[in-house]
Amino acid sequence: MKAGVIGATGYGGAELLRILQSHPHFEIEAVYSSSQQGKSIVEHYPHLSDIVPMTLEDIEPKEIARKTGVVFLATPSGISAEIAPLLLQEGCTVIDLSGDFRLKNTNDYETWYKKSPAPKEWIDQAVYAMPELNREQIKTKETKFISNPGCYPTATLLGLAPLVKRGLVEENSILVDAKSGVSGAGQTATFGTIFNELNENFKIYKVNAHQHIPEIEQMLANWNYESPITFNTHLVPMTRGIMATIYGKLSADVTQEELLELYSNFYKDEPFIRIRPDGVFPATKEVYGSNYCDMGIGLDTRTGRVTVVSVIDNLMKGAAGQAIQNANILFGFDETAGLQFTPVYP
Amino acid sequence: MKAGVIGATGYGGAELLRILQSHPHFEIEAVYSSSQQGKSIVEHYPHLSDIVPMTLEDIEPKEIARKTGVVFLATPSGISAEIAPLLLQEGCTVIDLSGDFRLKNTNDYETWYKKSPAPKEWIDQAVYAMPELNREQIKTKETKFISNPGCYPTATLLGLAPLVKRGLVEENSILVDAKSGVSGAGQTATFGTIFNELNENFKIYKVNAHQHIPEIEQMLANWNYESPITFNTHLVPMTRGIMATIYGKLSADVTQEELLELYSNFYKDEPFIRIRPDGVFPATKEVYGSNYCDMGIGLDTRTGRVTVVSVIDNLMKGAAGQAIQNANILFGFDETAGLQFTPVYP
Amino acid sequence: MKAGVIGATGYGGAELLRILQSHPHFEIEAVYSSSQQGKSIVEHYPHLSDIVPMTLEDIEPKEIARKTGVVFLATPSGISAEIAPLLLQEGCTVIDLSGDFRLKNTNDYETWYKKSPAPKEWIDQAVYAMPELNREQIKTKETKFISNPGCYPTATLLGLAPLVKRGLVEENSILVDAKSGVSGAGQTATFGTIFNELNENFKIYKVNAHQHIPEIEQMLANWNYESPITFNTHLVPMTRGIMATIYGKLSADVTQEELLELYSNFYKDEPFIRIRPDGVFPATKEVYGSNYCDMGIGLDTRTGRVTVVSVIDNLMKGAAGQAIQNANILFGFDETAGLQFTPVYP
Amino acid sequence: MKAGVIGATGYGGAELLRILQSHPHFEIEAVYSSSQQGKSIVEHYPHLSDIVPMTLEDIEPKEIARKTGVVFLATPSGISAEIAPLLLQEGCTVIDLSGDFRLKNTNDYETWYKKSPAPKEWIDQAVYAMPELNREQIKTKETKFISNPGCYPTATLLGLAPLVKRGLVEENSILVDAKSGVSGAGQTATFGTIFNELNENFKIYKVNAHQHIPEIEQMLANWNYESPITFNTHLVPMTRGIMATIYGKLSADVTQEELLELYSNFYKDEPFIRIRPDGVFPATKEVYGSNYCDMGIGLDTRTGRVTVVSVIDNLMKGAAGQAIQNANILFGFDETAGLQFTPVYP
Repeated sequence: MKAGVIGATGYGGAELLRILQSHPHFEIEAVYSSSQQGKSIVEHYPHLSDIVPMTLEDIEPKEIARKTGVVFLATPSGISAEIAPLLLQEGCTVIDLSGDFRLKNTNDYETWYKKSPAPKEWIDQAVYAMPELNREQIKTKETKFISNPGCYPTATLLGLAPLVKRGLVEENSILVDAKSGVSGAGQTATFGTIFNELNENFKIYKVNAHQHIPEIEQMLANWNYESPITFNTHLVPMTRGIMATIYGKLSADVTQEELLELYSNFYKDEPFIRIRPDGVFPATKEVYGSNYCDMGIGLDTRTGRVTVVSVIDNLMKGAAGQAIQNANILFGFDETAGLQFTPVYP
Repeated sequence: MKAGVIGATGYGGAELLRILQSHPHFEIEAVYSSSQQGKSIVEHYPHLSDIVPMTLEDIEPKEIARKTGVVFLATPSGISAEIAPLLLQEGCTVIDLSGDFRLKNTNDYETWYKKSPAPKEWIDQAVYAMPELNREQIKTKETKFISNPGCYPTATLLGLAPLVKRGLVEENSILVDAKSGVSGAGQTATFGTIFNELNENFKIYKVNAHQHIPEIEQMLANWNYESPITFNTHLVPMTRGIMATIYGKLSADVTQEELLELYSNFYKDEPFIRIRPDGVFPATKEVYGSNYCDMGIGLDTRTGRVTVVSVIDNLMKGAAGQAIQNANILFGFDETAGLQFTPVYP
Repeated sequence: MKAGVIGATGYGGAELLRILQSHPHFEIEAVYSSSQQGKSIVEHYPHLSDIVPMTLEDIEPKEIARKTGVVFLATPSGISAEIAPLLLQEGCTVIDLSGDFRLKNTNDYETWYKKSPAPKEWIDQAVYAMPELNREQIKTKETKFISNPGCYPTATLLGLAPLVKRGLVEENSILVDAKSGVSGAGQTATFGTIFNELNENFKIYKVNAHQHIPEIEQMLANWNYESPITFNTHLVPMTRGIMATIYGKLSADVTQEELLELYSNFYKDEPFIRIRPDGVFPATKEVYGSNYCDMGIGLDTRTGRVTVVSVIDNLMKGAAGQAIQNANILFGFDETAGLQFTPVYP
Repeated sequence: MKAGVIGATGYGGAELLRILQSHPHFEIEAVYSSSQQGKSIVEHYPHLSDIVPMTLEDIEPKEIARKTGVVFLATPSGISAEIAPLLLQEGCTVIDLSGDFRLKNTNDYETWYKKSPAPKEWIDQAVYAMPELNREQIKTKETKFISNPGCYPTATLLGLAPLVKRGLVEENSILVDAKSGVSGAGQTATFGTIFNELNENFKIYKVNAHQHIPEIEQMLANWNYESPITFNTHLVPMTRGIMATIYGKLSADVTQEELLELYSNFYKDEPFIRIRPDGVFPATKEVYGSNYCDMGIGLDTRTGRVTVVSVIDNLMKGAAGQAIQNANILFGFDETAGLQFTPVYP
C-alpha cells in the first residue's frame, strides 16, 4: 500500500520513513512539507542517503488522495488541525501523530494547549488508538481517521491500565513523575533547546501544566477513575527515551507476586509489552529504537504505594512506531509487520 | 587551621581538596588513603597538578591527631565506622561524610545499609549537621564529631522543612522522586557504572529501598511528621547534580503566593539557599560546582498537591561543600568562608 | 544456516545477536561464554527479552562443530588465539572478530599487542576480509576462516583506498587522527571506563602506540605504500561511532571535483559506502546502528593536503556488521542480507 | 577598578561575570547588552541569582567611559568592530574578545570571516595579547586596547611555541586536528546547535576553512615559520573544553626526554601552563572551569613526527580567563589575581 508522510522533516517523520522503507506492506509514495518543498529529504537528513530518494512535495490534498492509500500526519499541533480535515474530505485515510484530535472535550484542548481546537465534527470521528487498550475500536471497518496517542500518555496509560481497570488504585492517589529525552522537543531551535543549555543538566518543565494531563485523565475516566492526577515532566540530557515513574496507593490487599502476575496476564498476548521479573526494572536504553514498552513493578509495603516503571522510545512506541502499529491493525496486516526492531544496545 | 583528608582519592575527597586549597582559614596538612599510600595525589588526579603537591600517607590516628586540627573522613560507609572511633579516641575533631553515623537507630542502619552499624556510643556523640536546620546544635562548644548529611537528604529536607515544620503537609502524602548525576556512585568500577551502560540511558535504582530513606524520616520525625515517605532514586546521564522533585498534599488552604512567601521567609538569612520566583524552577546546572541549594515551588490547585523542586550539586552542598560549611560553623569562621563559588555555567 | 556466537555477552556479541535474529539465512543456534555458562542472555541483556531466549553454554568445540554451520568469535584478543584453532580443527567455519589473526607478521603482533601471537599456521590460513577491498579472496571456495578487520582500520582503509591504490599520496605524508565512541572499549570496568571519568571529557589514548597501526600499514603495503603512518586515537563522550580524519599530501595535481569523482567511481557498486557531495561531510550519528561507511572529501589547495572524513558505527561496520557481511559473501548469500538497517537518527 | 561587560548575556560574558565577581581588584560596575536592555542578568542566567544583581543597560560609550576603568567586549565578530572604536574614542580601555581586531591584514579578515573588516587604524592599535608569548608588549604603558586571542589559537600556539621558536619544525609539516566542546558556538539557536543534532554525535565543521587559521599563521610568521598549516575543527558532544592534537615533523634530532625538558623550561615560570610527565597526556576535563593550559608531548620515532596535546577550557583560557589575565597584566595586578580556580573534577 502506498503511503504518504506529511511533515517528513521532523523527527517523527524521519522515524516513519525509517520504518516504512523496510515495511513489507507499505511503501513510501511521497513525502510532503509545508515549508521545504523542492528540497530532497537527503539534504535535510544525510543519514537517509541512498535509502529515501524523494524530494519534498507541496501538500495538495486531492493529489495526495489520488496517490496514497494512507497518509501519516507528522505535523505539530495546530497544523494537523488544519490539514487533516482537508485530507479527510478528499477521502484519505489519515493517521495523525499530533495532539489536535486526541481530546474529545474541546474546552480541555483550549485550556491545556492554549490554542483553538480543531473542528468538533472531525474530533468526533477520530479514533484515539492505543492498540493494547482499544484494539477492537481501531479494527472497526469504518475507521478512516486515527489519532495517535502522545508519548507520555502511552508510557503512563500502559503502566496504569492493569491496576486501574481492576479498580486497585485509591482515588486521588495517582502521581506520575515522567522523564524524557530531548527528541520529544523536536527540531525547534530556541535558547532552551540548544546543546549547551541541556547537556550535563536536568530540568523540570511545564510544572503541573503539561498538555498530556487531560489526555491521560480522559482515558482514566473511561475506566471509571475520575479523580485528577499529578503529572510532571523532566528533560534528561539524552536524545531518546521516556521513563514514567508511576505511583498509586493500592485500594486492596495485593502482594508483589500478585501484582507481577496481574501485569503478566494482562499483557500476555501483547507483542510489544515486556514485563520484567521481580526486583528488576527497565532502563530507557533497553527499548532504544524499538517499539517496546517495558515495565517493572514494585510494591512498597511500608507505604502501601505501588511503583510502576514504564519505559518507551518516545519516537517509536511514543510516536512513529505506534502509528505504524495502528496502521497495521487498520489495514488488517500482522500487527508487528515492519516493527520487529531489536533495541539498539548499547 | 591544619586539615587532613582521609579518602582523598574519592570524588568527595577531591572536592574537599578543591575547596580547602583556597580556603582562608584551613590549609591542607596531609592526605590519607588506606590503599594508595605513597602515590601522589597528582598521579591519581592530574587536574590537581601544581595545586595539591601531597603524597598519600598511611592512616595513623596518633600522628593525624598530632598534625591536624580537623580531619575530614571521605571514606565509604563501613570504613568510616572503623576509622572514626580511632581518630576520636586520639582527640581528633572529625567530620565524617559517610552514612555510618547518621542513623541514631542502629536497627535502621542494619536494615537499610545491610551492614553492621558503628559502635552506638560514637553514633550517639555524632552531631547530624545540616546548618540551615540545626545550626545551633553544631555550634555547641563540645561538638567534636560531625556526621555530614547524605546528598539526597540534603536536597529533600531543605525542600520539605518550611512545609513540614509549619505542619502544612498531610500525613502519608510525602513522595519524593529524586534524580542524581553519576558522581554520587563514586569511583567504583563495575559493569553498572561504566560509560556505555549509563550514557544515553535513564535508570531507576534501589526502588523503594534507598538507604537515605531512614535518614530523611529520622529528621521528619524530629519535626513531628511520623508517617513513612515514598522515595525513589534515578541515575541521570550526567556527572553532577541532584534534583529532588518533592510532592505533598497540603493540609490547609494556602495559596501559591503564600507558599513562596513562606519559603522566602524561612530561608531569608541563609547564604546558600535561593528561592526562584513564581513560575520559575531551577535546573541542576544552575548550582554546578557551587554550594547552593536552589528551589522552586508550584501549587497544583487541581490536586491540592504542592511540588517543590530542590537542586544541589551532590558533591558540594550534598557532600564536601556542606562538610566545609559545618567545619566553618564548628570553628566559628564565617559560614561562607571558602565556599563562595559561583556556579560554573554552562 | 545455524550460527553460534561465542562471547555473546560482549557488545560485539550483542550486536551479532541483533543482526542474526532477523537475518533471512542465519538463525541463532546457540550462544557461548567462557565465564557465564548457565546464565540466560536476557539476564545480562534485558533489551533482548522475548527476542533471544537462549542460555549461555560452555565452549565445547566438538559439540559446536556438530550443531552449527558457522561460528562467530566475539572474544577479546588473546582468547580468540586459543579458541579459534580448537574450532577449526573440528571443521568449524570461523569468523573471528578479534585482532589475533589479522597481522601476518607475528613480530608485529608481539610488538603492538604485547602478547604472544596465535600459532603461525592458523594465522596463515585466516583471510583478512574487508569486502570492498578484497571481496574475491573471501569468496574463494576453500575459505573457512575469516579474520574480521578492526574498527579503526575499517574506517581508515576505506577512506584511503581510492587515493593510495591510484598512487596519489606522497610518501611519509599519511596522518590519521581518529576518534571513537566508548563502546569500542567493551564492557571492561576499570577506573578509566567509568562514566564519571569519560563524560564531559575528551581524551587521547595510546599515543602513537595503537595496535591497529600495523594492521593499517600491512594493507597499505599490499598497495605498495610502504612508509609508516602517523595514527592517533581519542575517546569521545558518546557510545557509538568512529570518525577517522585522514590527511595526506597529494603527489599529483588533482582537483576537488576529480577527487569526488574518483571516490564515487571507486565505490559506485558498493551497497554500504556513501560519498557525500562537495562541501558536505558526514557526522558519526548519520551511520548509527547501520553498516554504512560514509565519507566526505576536501582538498586544501593551500597546503596540497586532502582531508578524507570517514565515519562508521564501530559495532556495526567496525565489528558485527562487517562480520555478517563477510559471512554473507562466504556462503554466497546476498551481501546485504540481514544488514539493511537504516541509521537510527536522531 | 570598575569594570563593565558588554555582551553579558553570551557565555563569554557570563564567564567574565563569574571571574570578576570574586576578583580582588575589579568589581562589576555595569553590564550592557544591545538587545536585552532592562532585563536583569538573573532572568537570563538564574545561576547568578544573589551574585550579580545588575540589570542590562544600553550601550552608551560616553556613559561607559565615565563609569568604568575597563570594558570587556564579549560581543560577536562584526559587532565588536562597530562598538570598540566608539569606546576607544571616548578614552575607554577596551579588552575585546571577538576576532575583529586580531588579524593585522584586513584582506585575511575578509577572506576568512567573510565580513567587512574593522577600521584599519584601530586594528593597528590593538595589541594581540597572549601573556605567555608576548607579555612585555601587553605591559607597555600606552596599551589601551587588547585583542584577546581565539580559543583554538590559544591552545595551538601555546602547544607550538617551544618547538617553532626553536626552529625545530620542518616546513609545511604542521597539522593541527582540533576538537571543541559546543559552548564555543555560543548561544545561537539553529538547527545545527540543538541538543538532538549534537548529542551522541561527532562532527567535523568548516573543513580547511576555519577563521582561526590566519590568526595562528600570523603568529607563526612572527616566529619565522612561513608555510601554511593544515587545521581542522570538530564538535565534541560536551559543553566545555578544547583539545588541539598538534603534529609536526622534527627538523633536527631530538629525543623525547629533550622535548619534555624543552617544554618544561620554556614554561617554567608560567602559572597557567602545566606539562605532563613522560607518557601522560591531558584530557580536557582536567582544566574544566580553570585558566590552565595543560600539555603532553609524544615523539613518534617511527615517523619523526612529534605529537603535542594541548587542552584548555575554551571559555576560560580560551576566552574570559585569558581576558582577565591580560587585564591583570595591563593594570599591573598579580597576573593570577582572581584566576586561581582549581579545575572542577569530575
